Amino acid sequence: MIQQAELISTGAELLSGRSVNTHARLLGERLDQVGISLLRDTTVPDDQAVIESCISAAATRVKLIFISGGLGPTNDDVTRDAVAAVTGRPIVMHQPALAELHERMKRAGRSITPARERQALVIDGASIWLNPAGAAPGECIEHDDAYFILLPGPPNEFEAILDTHVLPWLQQLNSGAPALRKRVLMTCGTAEGDIVDRFEKSNFPPAGIETAYCASAGRVEIRLHPIGGTSDDALDAAQEEAVRIVGPEFVYARERTSLAELLARELTARGQTLATAESCTGGLIAERLTDRPGSSAYFRGGIVAYADEIKQRLLGVSPETLATEGAVSEQVAREMASGVQARLGVDYAIAVTGIAGPSGGSAEKPVGLVFSAIAQPTGVDCYRDVFPGNRRTIRELTYQYTLMRLWQCLRDKA
Amino acid sequence: MIQQAELISTGAELLSGRSVNTHARLLGERLDQVGISLLRDTTVPDDQAVIESCISAAATRVKLIFISGGLGPTNDDVTRDAVAAVTGRPIVMHQPALAELHERMKRAGRSITPARERQALVIDGASIWLNPAGAAPGECIEHDDAYFILLPGPPNEFEAILDTHVLPWLQQLNSGAPALRKRVLMTCGTAEGDIVDRFEKSNFPPAGIETAYCASAGRVEIRLHPIGGTSDDALDAAQEEAVRIVGPEFVYARERTSLAELLARELTARGQTLATAESCTGGLIAERLTDRPGSSAYFRGGIVAYADEIKQRLLGVSPETLATEGAVSEQVAREMASGVQARLGVDYAIAVTGIAGPSGGSAEKPVGLVFSAIAQPTGVDCYRDVFPGNRRTIRELTYQYTLMRLWQCLRDKA
Repeated sequence: MIQQAELISTGAELLSGRSVNTHARLLGERLDQVGISLLRDTTVPDDQAVIESCISAAATRVKLIFISGGLGPTNDDVTRDAVAAVTGRPIVMHQPALAELHERMKRAGRSITPARERQALVIDGASIWLNPAGAAPGECIEHDDAYFILLPGPPNEFEAILDTHVLPWLQQLNSGAPALRKRVLMTCGTAEGDIVDRFEKSNFPPAGIETAYCASAGRVEIRLHPIGGTSDDALDAAQEEAVRIVGPEFVYARERTSLAELLARELTARGQTLATAESCTGGLIAERLTDRPGSSAYFRGGIVAYADEIKQRLLGVSPETLATEGAVSEQVAREMASGVQARLGVDYAIAVTGIAGPSGGSAEKPVGLVFSAIAQPTGVDCYRDVFPGNRRTIRELTYQYTLMRLWQCLRDKA
Repeated sequence: MIQQAELISTGAELLSGRSVNTHARLLGERLDQVGISLLRDTTVPDDQAVIESCISAAATRVKLIFISGGLGPTNDDVTRDAVAAVTGRPIVMHQPALAELHERMKRAGRSITPARERQALVIDGASIWLNPAGAAPGECIEHDDAYFILLPGPPNEFEAILDTHVLPWLQQLNSGAPALRKRVLMTCGTAEGDIVDRFEKSNFPPAGIETAYCASAGRVEIRLHPIGGTSDDALDAAQEEAVRIVGPEFVYARERTSLAELLARELTARGQTLATAESCTGGLIAERLTDRPGSSAYFRGGIVAYADEIKQRLLGVSPETLATEGAVSEQVAREMASGVQARLGVDYAIAVTGIAGPSGGSAEKPVGLVFSAIAQPTGVDCYRDVFPGNRRTIRELTYQYTLMRLWQCLRDKA
């Protein structure tokens, strides 16, 4: 049974500011599902000697080593050579992968060249996983009692091979492993420091349980881990105790999930609809809601009313309100929410107007001031916040808090 | 002079699927500006022994070591202890940071607790950088001829201290360093493999120049690096040669930049305006355009017309077109673009309608089929694409290609 893994991410672009490394998050999340902890991610450039030393070092610590990137057609793709050197195995042409590559190129109307054919080269003796989303296949090399897994760098190809081939294989390998016994609380609207304070004052957690936190804009995930043989009942009791101490109004879930996911499930189940009217978030809320398949079941559409004139024309906000209250005001948020609710014919609507910065703030209306309104079948609620941070953080916090309020409305009026 | 650095990112959340590590990209990009290469990012959990071994290993390779995360108030914040152990220095309370912390808590109406006060603990002898965006300060420890830089984990705090304190300090440290001499081509609409093929056929690059690539959805960045003493003139000539070989229609910039940035600059300079009408991208295009400060100068607003009825009501798409052609069709894209252009009173409008999947595809209209229309003062152009990949990739490619087409319109009709 394998319980620990490491990842080596290769690619100069991951270290030069051009790309974010999303492999570690994706792999960590998937491995967690099969009871394996990702212990380390080492991101290095496409330098064969460096990659070799990373692979050798990882092999002294764990028996499952993922290496991403560097399997493409260009001369800076050297991962295969590094693994060949470490394992002492030759590189050979994989005929089925080559045939598949020719087939792909033919379908795309492109010619096959020696550079492209390099993508069908594999380590001798590797198990090959064909790539559902691209040219270079994944490879699994069993060597010296360890597994070396080579996956292509483009995130969609990495994910496709991981889900199609690697996870089923790991599930097989680890069949019979006990499920991870942690408990989770997802919170929104209260700071990590405040949660820690409240736990300290209440002498939480009890013996036999350990807390861990993960905070991101507006959200804190709290995990309760058993120490030793703590019973499932004790874990459940501690979870309920934690909800009480944190404040049930801040807890939106007892499993790892997102507010967008919860709202999608709930609205779809009820057959109700949602629309958005956004100013300072510029489409962010609509984009996140439609990021998941099936969102058309409840999401009807949205209006990004960036200019004041658009708030009047498309949402029916009154020119008088805009003139007397200003675009960033409770009254405008309310009119935006009612306007989009009526014009798009939906059950619920969310509207936000605020100052995301860096400019545009004043003493009375500082950067970070956001009004968010939730239009429901029974009326409109409006909230005022002053969020800290830069433009991106303010937009992100606006998104989280607004979804939390809609979730509270749905839950309270269930 | 310092030319190389490493980063150690700490935090269990970065390896368990809960957060993406954005520090490496941000740090790599900023260090690049001051002529320093980020050679490695090692992401590890909040485990003091592991962090200590990573710091020691990094110190054998480079003289500038960044360590992010683990400076917060909770019991899993152990970075400070790890650095103290490696450098053999005690941890002390930093009085100005503590005073600042008390001031912050007072402003926020929160009580100060022993847990919170931990955030003002620092390594003895460190230079302290107060945190403009949060509680824990940054620290710089000069030890054994190397610099250890401790920065908080929350991305906005990491970025704030980096920009306010670390970069000016590094610029000072490295004043007099020669500028990096690479040349860049940014392309959209042609695959990395195709570029490699064309370069190979044309025997490009010439001697004394090395190519490197970074591909992401729809885009390829090509870099030309001098080998040895290659002259600036030779680099310039190679850059122009590369543009010719790749095809000038695919090259949108000769510096590292984004299409959104270019469009913002161009439209603002011309005093022209833009609006969006989105179906399959669900607000993604509007969100990206408004992600940067100053976007209100040219972006008026957008309509996310997810349901067909919304396409009629808010964009004036004719019910007959929807019935005969279907929502994913050239005609609907054209009517969406004209509709939003007229209703929002803008010079340019972009409209997209497509099938992002995973369901909803057919033989005639497969998943990935996208029509994008660009309404200009002189008329509407429409494009048909079938994009590969999953939902997220299809949405991302739609965004890139649509912006590229708008950019081509603007450039050609300049």
